[in-house]
Amino acid sequence: MEIDAAAASAGMTSKDYYFDSYAHFGIHEEMLKDEVRTVSYRDSIIKNKHIFQGKVVLDVGCGTGILSMFAAKAGAKHVIGVDMSNIIDKAKLIVEENGLSDKITLLKGKMEEVVLPYDKVDIIISEWMGYFLLYESMLDTVLVARDKYLQPNGMIFPDTATMVISTLEDADYKEEKLNFWNDVYGFKMSCIKEAAMSEPLVDTVEARCINSSQCVFKTIDILTVKKEDLTFNVPFEITIERDDYVHAFISWFDIEFRACHKPVRFSTGPFAKYTHWKQTVFYTKDNLTVSKGDVIKGSIACAPNGENPRDLDITIDYEFEGKEDSSKDRIEYRMC
Amino acid sequence: MEIDAAAASAGMTSKDYYFDSYAHFGIHEEMLKDEVRTVSYRDSIIKNKHIFQGKVVLDVGCGTGILSMFAAKAGAKHVIGVDMSNIIDKAKLIVEENGLSDKITLLKGKMEEVVLPYDKVDIIISEWMGYFLLYESMLDTVLVARDKYLQPNGMIFPDTATMVISTLEDADYKEEKLNFWNDVYGFKMSCIKEAAMSEPLVDTVEARCINSSQCVFKTIDILTVKKEDLTFNVPFEITIERDDYVHAFISWFDIEFRACHKPVRFSTGPFAKYTHWKQTVFYTKDNLTVSKGDVIKGSIACAPNGENPRDLDITIDYEFEGKEDSSKDRIEYRMC
Repeated sequence: MEIDAAAASAGMTSKDYYFDSYAHFGIHEEMLKDEVRTVSYRDSIIKNKHIFQGKVVLDVGCGTGILSMFAAKAGAKHVIGVDMSNIIDKAKLIVEENGLSDKITLLKGKMEEVVLPYDKVDIIISEWMGYFLLYESMLDTVLVARDKYLQPNGMIFPDTATMVISTLEDADYKEEKLNFWNDVYGFKMSCIKEAAMSEPLVDTVEARCINSSQCVFKTIDILTVKKEDLTFNVPFEITIERDDYVHAFISWFDIEFRACHKPVRFSTGPFAKYTHWKQTVFYTKDNLTVSKGDVIKGSIACAPNGENPRDLDITIDYEFEGKEDSSKDRIEYRMC
Repeated sequence: MEIDAAAASAGMTSKDYYFDSYAHFGIHEEMLKDEVRTVSYRDSIIKNKHIFQGKVVLDVGCGTGILSMFAAKAGAKHVIGVDMSNIIDKAKLIVEENGLSDKITLLKGKMEEVVLPYDKVDIIISEWMGYFLLYESMLDTVLVARDKYLQPNGMIFPDTATMVISTLEDADYKEEKLNFWNDVYGFKMSCIKEAAMSEPLVDTVEARCINSSQCVFKTIDILTVKKEDLTFNVPFEITIERDDYVHAFISWFDIEFRACHKPVRFSTGPFAKYTHWKQTVFYTKDNLTVSKGDVIKGSIACAPNGENPRDLDITIDYEFEGKEDSSKDRIEYRMC
């Protein structure tokens, strides 16, 4: 038996899941220790006191309250932190321990249901991003908060997210992850190979394994995006940069705080420092023999799964006419 | 947000948890790829055909069916695999794909409720071990199966488990894990430090950091142990082997298949090859300055938690009169 992975793959109902998943400090430890993430938020807030001075700030999914405390330190008039998870009970102790109880009000509950002490807020801050940006993401909740509480000309930190796709040389790991199931101590486990193939793999990838241009296939303006915009089917075009093999598509996202005096940005891609979001790998059924200058055209579709809206259905169509090889396929993935 | 750790720390009800946690292939991939684990089971079964020949075998918590297939290959007359998780649906496909459907019967359900095609079985095989051997372990279910189905003089694979305690020099990591909460980007988070202190840490430890003798504090004979024996309070005595500091107690377990012609053994300790069980670290409140020959006497108590029986309450009492230092403490941990 094995425990972490067991729970990690537990098919809880969304309610159980949401309610409990952030209660344990372990996940907050990993997020706080992700310095790319936390320092970007800190800089975007603390280094922009002129923006936060005297403002009413709403922290959506406040967790341990770290962002709320940054905002209070940046001179906010008042900060309201909202979270459904029991971690907020610890956040209350933390805010008190740091002498910020008069500046920060923490409310446990759903964004849709809690009663805020203000009709409108000046700034929304939130760390809502999930794997592949949108998997198990809290963006829907941020949009609810924005539409209900953010006043005209209000700001959102961060305000921009971009999603990128590229291609990957990944022979060894693909062998290990997929072909392992062809001979498991002498036995075939094809049904598990299929399951492994149809699920995107969240893992870190070495920059040197990226062998094509990177295509931004989706840009999200948090100030204006609508929930329905998060279900999409968009084209992409990638140019191969060296003679190589393509074993997978890979996706990551970049985050921007454009409202800052000097925009703060961070990337979760393979060319940037490690983040706990890693990257998302989509293995192709065929391995493509690609040559420098070859072009891969395709489209990527993303939608909540019909049965379980917390799962993400991701479909990649691609077409490729290369010097050495050509191929065309549609692969349906389910992120669960 | 972060996902794996989130679910990993989700406080599901035991029912949800058990039902769902093994449904995803990811956990079985990790267990199968744990070669110390899987090869030990394979050797204990495949290399003991004389034991399995013509026997009726019960596989408790069969998962992907790998142990059932080993038993079938070893010449078992019939193998019954039982598992509550939906993974058994894949196991059925796997057994079929490997042409063993006539030898292996897979039953989905609780051990207490499923109806076996035999009144008695000759051999029970099971991989039931959890972290710290007993955390979220399936041993209770194995005992139910044993008492209901194993015939007199029947065998259980494995048949012996031993739990070991020692001491650890772990200055840097203890600093990182506990003192991190003293200054989180300028804020104190004492309540989380307390939570981190009271929870055993499952992680791999370098053998060179073990600085005392190892004391076996519990030996479990799977053929005779009773459920109540799994709640215990036992003494231990450890002798320090070099002048050093002790930052934590550390525990691991060893597993034996004594019924084999040539006994098969594996250890999950720091002196053996990596296993997914890793080791379990219990940080002490004080760091002890220890000298070669110093003796630490104490006791370790283990019991299911009152509120949530899936959690484990572990209490370590110790007393130490060393050449350079002396200390005495009782530390209560909760594994959850």
